[in-house]
Amino acid sequence: MEIKFDLNNMFSSLISPPYGIDGKEIDALSNQLSKAHANISSMRKKGELVFLDMPYKEEFINQVDEIVKLKKGKFENFVNIGIGGSALGSIAVFNSLSHPFHNLLESSRRNNAPRMFFPDNIDPDGIDGLFDVLDIKKTVINITSKSGGTVEPISTFLLLRQRIIDKVGIKAYKDHIIVTTSESQGELRQIAKEEGFSSLSIPNDLGGRYSVLSPAGLLCAALLGYSVKEFMDGAKMMDKKTSVQDVWKNPAYLYSALHYIADQKKGLNIFVIMPYSNALRTIADWYAQLVSESLGKVSGNGSLVGPTPVKALGVTDQHSQLQLYVEGRRDKVVTFIAVDSFSASLTIPKAYDKYDSIGYLGGHTITELFDAERKATELSLTKNNRLNCTISLPQINPHTLGQLFYFFEVCTLFLGQLYNVNPLDQPGVEESKDYARAFMGKKGSEGKKLEIEKLSKKDSKYCF
Amino acid sequence: MEIKFDLNNMFSSLISPPYGIDGKEIDALSNQLSKAHANISSMRKKGELVFLDMPYKEEFINQVDEIVKLKKGKFENFVNIGIGGSALGSIAVFNSLSHPFHNLLESSRRNNAPRMFFPDNIDPDGIDGLFDVLDIKKTVINITSKSGGTVEPISTFLLLRQRIIDKVGIKAYKDHIIVTTSESQGELRQIAKEEGFSSLSIPNDLGGRYSVLSPAGLLCAALLGYSVKEFMDGAKMMDKKTSVQDVWKNPAYLYSALHYIADQKKGLNIFVIMPYSNALRTIADWYAQLVSESLGKVSGNGSLVGPTPVKALGVTDQHSQLQLYVEGRRDKVVTFIAVDSFSASLTIPKAYDKYDSIGYLGGHTITELFDAERKATELSLTKNNRLNCTISLPQINPHTLGQLFYFFEVCTLFLGQLYNVNPLDQPGVEESKDYARAFMGKKGSEGKKLEIEKLSKKDSKYCF
Repeated sequence: MEIKFDLNNMFSSLISPPYGIDGKEIDALSNQLSKAHANISSMRKKGELVFLDMPYKEEFINQVDEIVKLKKGKFENFVNIGIGGSALGSIAVFNSLSHPFHNLLESSRRNNAPRMFFPDNIDPDGIDGLFDVLDIKKTVINITSKSGGTVEPISTFLLLRQRIIDKVGIKAYKDHIIVTTSESQGELRQIAKEEGFSSLSIPNDLGGRYSVLSPAGLLCAALLGYSVKEFMDGAKMMDKKTSVQDVWKNPAYLYSALHYIADQKKGLNIFVIMPYSNALRTIADWYAQLVSESLGKVSGNGSLVGPTPVKALGVTDQHSQLQLYVEGRRDKVVTFIAVDSFSASLTIPKAYDKYDSIGYLGGHTITELFDAERKATELSLTKNNRLNCTISLPQINPHTLGQLFYFFEVCTLFLGQLYNVNPLDQPGVEESKDYARAFMGKKGSEGKKLEIEKLSKKDSKYCF
Repeated sequence: MEIKFDLNNMFSSLISPPYGIDGKEIDALSNQLSKAHANISSMRKKGELVFLDMPYKEEFINQVDEIVKLKKGKFENFVNIGIGGSALGSIAVFNSLSHPFHNLLESSRRNNAPRMFFPDNIDPDGIDGLFDVLDIKKTVINITSKSGGTVEPISTFLLLRQRIIDKVGIKAYKDHIIVTTSESQGELRQIAKEEGFSSLSIPNDLGGRYSVLSPAGLLCAALLGYSVKEFMDGAKMMDKKTSVQDVWKNPAYLYSALHYIADQKKGLNIFVIMPYSNALRTIADWYAQLVSESLGKVSGNGSLVGPTPVKALGVTDQHSQLQLYVEGRRDKVVTFIAVDSFSASLTIPKAYDKYDSIGYLGGHTITELFDAERKATELSLTKNNRLNCTISLPQINPHTLGQLFYFFEVCTLFLGQLYNVNPLDQPGVEESKDYARAFMGKKGSEGKKLEIEKLSKKDSKYCF
């Protein structure tokens, strides 16, 4: 099952110039595109782009299957502790593949998979609320932190760990803990070894936000009963399509080149991602991190670059964002994600025939209405010369998700080349971490105090 | 309990010029600001700004209390059907005030309030999944549609209505239905009368996205056991503060003027809203609709205007968006929403002392860490000359929420004046609705077919 790309509504054949992009504008970029391709190929050969090779690393898949054998059926609750790249992938996978009310179903109706929780914040009431609904004796936790030292998941882990010890005792408690971290680096790896926790490995050189196709993203899928291998097969299929040098034959390259031109030549620097599917809603969160952290930075020539990702949900946000997208400032490209086939088929019952706005609906299916609204939104944007494109999944399953994740990762890598930034680092967040450590009294961070004082001087006339 | 505003990090005293705004730039706008104030005052006097007067309309509050008396305790599930302005307010209220896992708690631990569901999409699998977890006999539904003819909630309503009839019979079924719609307009009001459904009224002239402080937004709060009157008291308090003409004494006017200058003079046309609170997460969705639909349109002088709202959540999105906000293109203003006092107090247990990144955390509370991270993010933005400001709620309750909602509504109204747009309409979404009706075969929409054909011509070379 192949996912499909329709990029027509980016081009001047359907979108009037100067808004629509002409094929010649792509061709004019050909040197840059070739160079980007050559750089990527060379980096991949040198082993610097681990995420591109994840679909072929079977040893990591095998680890996931082993953990599932060990833990499945023994626990009522699975708590996946992580933040950012160590959370967004697994949350996206979980929402895409699980029943929309998974945690409200009885065990038999969720194939005996555990209830699943993804605390990805340290909001005090959020964590405390989680404790209210967990029977700790029946809970297994998985802390995911690539670096092994991320303060938020570590703190949540320490809180849950203590509760487990209190409930089941020091001897039994380690059965309740899984650690997912770097193969051989970081303090959490050390701790896992010392304590004898079950663990999963993330390759040392695999960045958090590119780790969805690793144990960091896929354990929850396996616990739900899905095949991890199918994700990999989908990703491999996409790898073939996105390794082609010719931009006109490579969906990731063409998609990226169009977005780059839209940003740099047409001033469209907001990339909207709008799945028409509740299940794919959190794919947008995953995408937003990928784009923001990878591309939002200082480019090689010193300019500040990076599109701003915006998340929307169809049809819901037609009643929230569409007015802005159709008539507001011309600064956006919209990517729709469509699903061709849903599991459910629901026919709207006939009723209240005499009423104009209601009567005609009876007899249609909800899927017809849902599709009609998506197409209508696409047409409305196109008619108003607003660039948009559509990625279609024949259905939502591990194979199509594997394709989709891999596609966006290649796009981000390729866009990094075009923007002339390193899409694998995130230097801009370090300062904030330093300040936080200073507030928390970590040794060695005293030097920040003067700076904090200076930046915290408030004038009461700007306060209400 | 007053909510507080700290606008210091918008000004040139802490943010270096030309990025920081100088007081003189505000004063230079004084004619425009006075005119905006005068227009608003005059429109309000003429009764054209119903939402500003909602806190004083006790008859609507009384309706809510009556419905709660009638329905509470009799049903296990409450399903609030609505979309856009008829959903976002009540979802924001529900998430702000309920336990984070409300629907997983036993009835006694949620003060006998029903489980609550907010289907605001017509995703087929989403609706079908909802049916899996509802015992229809124990379910009451509330369809909210201001116009009374919105196709998505009507469709969901028809599906649920039929299931209720099938389960409880035609005689008993109307006890399971509440209708919330215009006082005296629209087909849903007609239907409520004919069928004898319990109903709540939205003033005829109150726009959906300004309706949170009406039965459309507050029924769920009352079902949770909160006082609707306290929302109104909070809103009244804010009304006093935001009715003052002097921009330097009116938090809504100053906040709006600063944002307008940031957009028009500094090119900062993306407004980020970042609550540091899981409970307030969906306030950002409500805000995003308010800003998008109210301001994203063609201005009186023909230019396309409107900032793009972006939703983020602290601390979670520090690990997703912060890189972009700190180092990416300079096009954003960030509003933090802080909460001074949480219900829970959790101390991080001491463990793994010998590890640098872990040992120092033990003994601190989660609230300390949460606050440290928020302040650190604020400082990091400020140091990098990124405009930001903070709204602080002493705690999350109906009174502070009433203030917050009212504040943003006044800001949007005032910004509408500055941008020279009508913040009460949404003309840009009509076309998409026409196309959707054509796809669904509604009579009278045949004329759209030719246009649809033309816009749907796809070139296979842009498809993959």
